Amino acid sequence: QIELALAEANAPHVTYEVDLFNKPEWFASKVNPVGKVPAVTYGGPNVDPDDPSPLSAKIAESNVILEFLADLYPDSGLLPKDPVLRAKVRFFIDATTKHIEGPFFAFIRGSESYDNILKGIEFIQELLEEGRDFAAGDHYTIADACISPHLARLKIVIETDLGRAPAGAFPREVESD
Amino acid sequence: QIELALAEANAPHVTYEVDLFNKPEWFASKVNPVGKVPAVTYGGPNVDPDDPSPLSAKIAESNVILEFLADLYPDSGLLPKDPVLRAKVRFFIDATTKHIEGPFFAFIRGSESYDNILKGIEFIQELLEEGRDFAAGDHYTIADACISPHLARLKIVIETDLGRAPAGAFPREVESD
Repeated sequence: QIELALAEANAPHVTYEVDLFNKPEWFASKVNPVGKVPAVTYGGPNVDPDDPSPLSAKIAESNVILEFLADLYPDSGLLPKDPVLRAKVRFFIDATTKHIEGPFFAFIRGSESYDNILKGIEFIQELLEEGRDFAAGDHYTIADACISPHLARLKIVIETDLGRAPAGAFPREVESD
Repeated sequence: QIELALAEANAPHVTYEVDLFNKPEWFASKVNPVGKVPAVTYGGPNVDPDDPSPLSAKIAESNVILEFLADLYPDSGLLPKDPVLRAKVRFFIDATTKHIEGPFFAFIRGSESYDNILKGIEFIQELLEEGRDFAAGDHYTIADACISPHLARLKIVIETDLGRAPAGAFPREVESD
């Protein structure tokens, strides 16, 4: 999600891949106390990504970071200018989080059936306007950046039957985004 | 949440209370297909609230509406101007939704223990800065508007033992915000 939004905004950045199965100690202590990815550091001195400065801002949670990038790059189109259109983009993101992401992880954990994901997709489908190429409005926004990795991941899960693995077969870290 | 933000922004508005146990037919067909409150109509001709115009924009989901009001009233302070501070406000709202609202409804439904609410409150507590009067930053924002009704409701639930009612004792509508 964040990589897509960064690319769309042509935002200069350094990517650091955190090994979720072997997180470096500094990640929780210096970037995100909760230990989840994605997280971004912003501002402060020019340092290596694996040696974050206490002077940079640390921002976590995908949807919060997406809004942050839209704020930093107001002319990127990541969010439209019109308040009503912005609300449409945010409603789409809210729906993706509640109706796709939530049911997806519940399914992976084995606590909810696959049907809930299908219902979620139907809900999202209803939001899409006929003949439009984007999630909300007429250009790429953070709503597109939000949903596309979910759909890509869902495709992989369907193709590999990942969801049929017994509960507990995966460590909790795979829930990170 | 929305009433608090509207008051903070001095936003002229008409309030219509939807009876959640006896929703008027027009609410789902003309305002929010999902039938949940809160929802706002914006723009369009000047009509009675119980006769919404197809020409007004319809916006639902509390957090989406809060952002919408902050967009409509940029000088209200509902969101700060600085992108990093805006991200702090949004992180607080995200945390409230995930760590207070989620566990609260799970508790009310009887699917999760009260402990999760306490953990959520501890998570939120960690976000509060010493000596500050507001949820995030130095003035009232949508983060304050977001959390205060949750805390007020929690107080009522604790005082009335509402959470000890048997599962299914309340219709699903009480989950609406």
